[in-house]
Amino acid sequence: MKLLYPTSLVLDPAKITGFPTLTLHPYDVKSPTLPSEHHDAEILVTWANSKDNLTYAVKNLKDLKWIQSLAAGPNDVLSAGFDASKVKITTGSGLHDKTVAEHALGLLLNAARRFYEMRDYQLQGKWPGHLGGPQPDREKGTFRTLRDARVTIWGFGNIAKSLTPHLVALGATVKGLARSKGVRDGIEVFGEDSLEDILKETDALVMILPGDASTKHALNRERLGYLPNHAWVVNVGRGTSIDEDALFEALEGEQIGGAALDVFETEPLPEGNKLYGAKNLILSPHAAGGRPQGAEELIVENLRKFLGGQELKNII
Amino acid sequence: MKLLYPTSLVLDPAKITGFPTLTLHPYDVKSPTLPSEHHDAEILVTWANSKDNLTYAVKNLKDLKWIQSLAAGPNDVLSAGFDASKVKITTGSGLHDKTVAEHALGLLLNAARRFYEMRDYQLQGKWPGHLGGPQPDREKGTFRTLRDARVTIWGFGNIAKSLTPHLVALGATVKGLARSKGVRDGIEVFGEDSLEDILKETDALVMILPGDASTKHALNRERLGYLPNHAWVVNVGRGTSIDEDALFEALEGEQIGGAALDVFETEPLPEGNKLYGAKNLILSPHAAGGRPQGAEELIVENLRKFLGGQELKNII
Ligand SMILES: NC(=O)c1ccc[n+]([C@@H]2O[C@H](COP(=O)([O-])OP(=O)(O)OC[C@H]3O[C@@H](n4cnc5c(N)ncnc54)[C@H](OP(=O)(O)O)[C@@H]3O)[C@@H](O)[C@H]2O)c1
Ligand SMILES: NC(=O)c1ccc[n+]([C@@H]2O[C@H](COP(=O)([O-])OP(=O)(O)OC[C@H]3O[C@@H](n4cnc5c(N)ncnc54)[C@H](OP(=O)(O)O)[C@@H]3O)[C@@H](O)[C@H]2O)c1
Repeated sequence: MKLLYPTSLVLDPAKITGFPTLTLHPYDVKSPTLPSEHHDAEILVTWANSKDNLTYAVKNLKDLKWIQSLAAGPNDVLSAGFDASKVKITTGSGLHDKTVAEHALGLLLNAARRFYEMRDYQLQGKWPGHLGGPQPDREKGTFRTLRDARVTIWGFGNIAKSLTPHLVALGATVKGLARSKGVRDGIEVFGEDSLEDILKETDALVMILPGDASTKHALNRERLGYLPNHAWVVNVGRGTSIDEDALFEALEGEQIGGAALDVFETEPLPEGNKLYGAKNLILSPHAAGGRPQGAEELIVENLRKFLGGQELKNII
Repeated sequence: MKLLYPTSLVLDPAKITGFPTLTLHPYDVKSPTLPSEHHDAEILVTWANSKDNLTYAVKNLKDLKWIQSLAAGPNDVLSAGFDASKVKITTGSGLHDKTVAEHALGLLLNAARRFYEMRDYQLQGKWPGHLGGPQPDREKGTFRTLRDARVTIWGFGNIAKSLTPHLVALGATVKGLARSKGVRDGIEVFGEDSLEDILKETDALVMILPGDASTKHALNRERLGYLPNHAWVVNVGRGTSIDEDALFEALEGEQIGGAALDVFETEPLPEGNKLYGAKNLILSPHAAGGRPQGAEELIVENLRKFLGGQELKNII
């Protein structure tokens, strides 16, 4: 049985041993084709493949039984034409928890400590004195530290669980919002019926929602209106979960404190887009994840399950 | 017995009860005088006082026995002319641990995640695509994440102890440098004899040294040369501990990865100073601390000791 693995990241084949019937073959994800001697591969691992490469795989890998993507979601594989009812498709959900959590923490601190504003002064050769020296402590109606800040995480899945302990350690009070309510990892998670109440008591809203139809414009004009005027919005999920026009108005009208966005409705954000210049907007170019951690372990776990005829992890 | 407390921060006198002989009186730290009816005060709490105000106190508070500063160091009190051999002087060391640690963490993430560079692109209306999307993971000779990063903290005191758990939780390996060696809070702390070896194995150097004669230009040209070319320097201690000319050259020559400075040899950094425009320099305007936490608790503890005739905490 053949498994094709990508050279677009450093994968160590020596960590994928113990399967006597299996052979491992590297391939170039940016090539518009796949080597003809490997068209009989049954397993394909994908990471940052070109669209051409995936489309070629759909047409030519006739024996393919399972695709293990290392991306958090299956979007690229599905849009290339793979059919989840014919080929098993599993995602790399979980491989990006730590990197995305670190980035989200960085964006929160950038917002609270106003590094973006300091940068603007620095570039003009000016000392941003109003941001330093003796400062009021935990002044009402400000978000200047994570200590005692009320952080709401909307989409309380794997990444949120990885992020939360860092926020708690810095003194934040964390609440979750998700489809189903209940206590998870010691954090109270609320459902949509509590949305208005929770948003009204939020200093920083961290959005980590997937990009499906159910989350489209989850943060709309009405819900932005529930947030206090000093509240920040951080989005490391998917750009489609925020109505960007409504967000722009809320920023310009100072109805919220600011927004730190790693994801956008259209990426790259087109030149000339008004968000580039929006007040208190921190732009990050979908840089939170992009570095799968522990790919070999996931592949091995799913190989065992695949060969054992069990349900695969992260199957869509 | 009279204690004068500053109105330059929110202090709750109700937390300083249980001392029958003591009366508490608020005062304005920016006033050039102190009310004549309080010239008999024996205890003065200071925070962000004007130079005039402190000089007035030196001359007029003839019964003064103890000054409790809420600042990390006694510099302002001493330079106003108070004499530690005549008046007990205690500092607010410890009150700034959490705020400075949070800021240092933010600066480290700003450096690793390159938020400052993203900002420069954003201000030009450009998408910093090279910083996002699929990225090489833990590439040799880079500092792009705290995960598996080797962080050295130079000056391993209260603030370092507060910062370290956050770094460890994010996956960093932390070592300390201080005057005396040994294991502290589970972290190996090295002395000056190991400096060269440690700096050579450092991805990020966090400096949290006090600003006395012994630390003047601790990071000089020679020692900057020990750091790997990708290493970052973060300074939240005192500006005098870095030779800024040598640092500027190291930055411009790309001998180090970058520097995130909250403190400078001269503050505010004078307009026209070359550091404003130095390559990969992140400027923060002495904003790490500035918000004492738990001032009442320290005052109460030292009041008990003062009245009990015991050695005061943080006495200089
Ligand atoms: N910026 C980046 O570089 C980057 C990198 C990796 C991933 N991501 C994004 O982050 C997303 C989340 O990743 P994850 O691993 O944490 O996913 P996950 O473990 O599947 O968690 C998703 C969470 O979202 C909640 N949710 C889903 N639909 C919802 C809705 N309509 N309303 C309210 N809550 C809803 C789920 O609620 P229940 O728990 O109640 O089901 C769950 O808590 C991914 O889908 C991906 O789009 C971004
Ligand atoms: N940026 C800000 O807003 C801000 C706010 C508050 C404080 N600070 C600065 O941060 C400094 C540190 O604060 P802290 O509370 O952590 O102080 P601390 O608890 O007194 O710790 C100081 C550390 O520095 C080490 N040290 C002193 N002189 C040294 C030398 N010549 N060589 C090597 N190590 C030396 C000490 O070594 P030993 O342990 O071996 O004695 C100790 O580990 C303060 O002095 C202040 O200047 C800055």
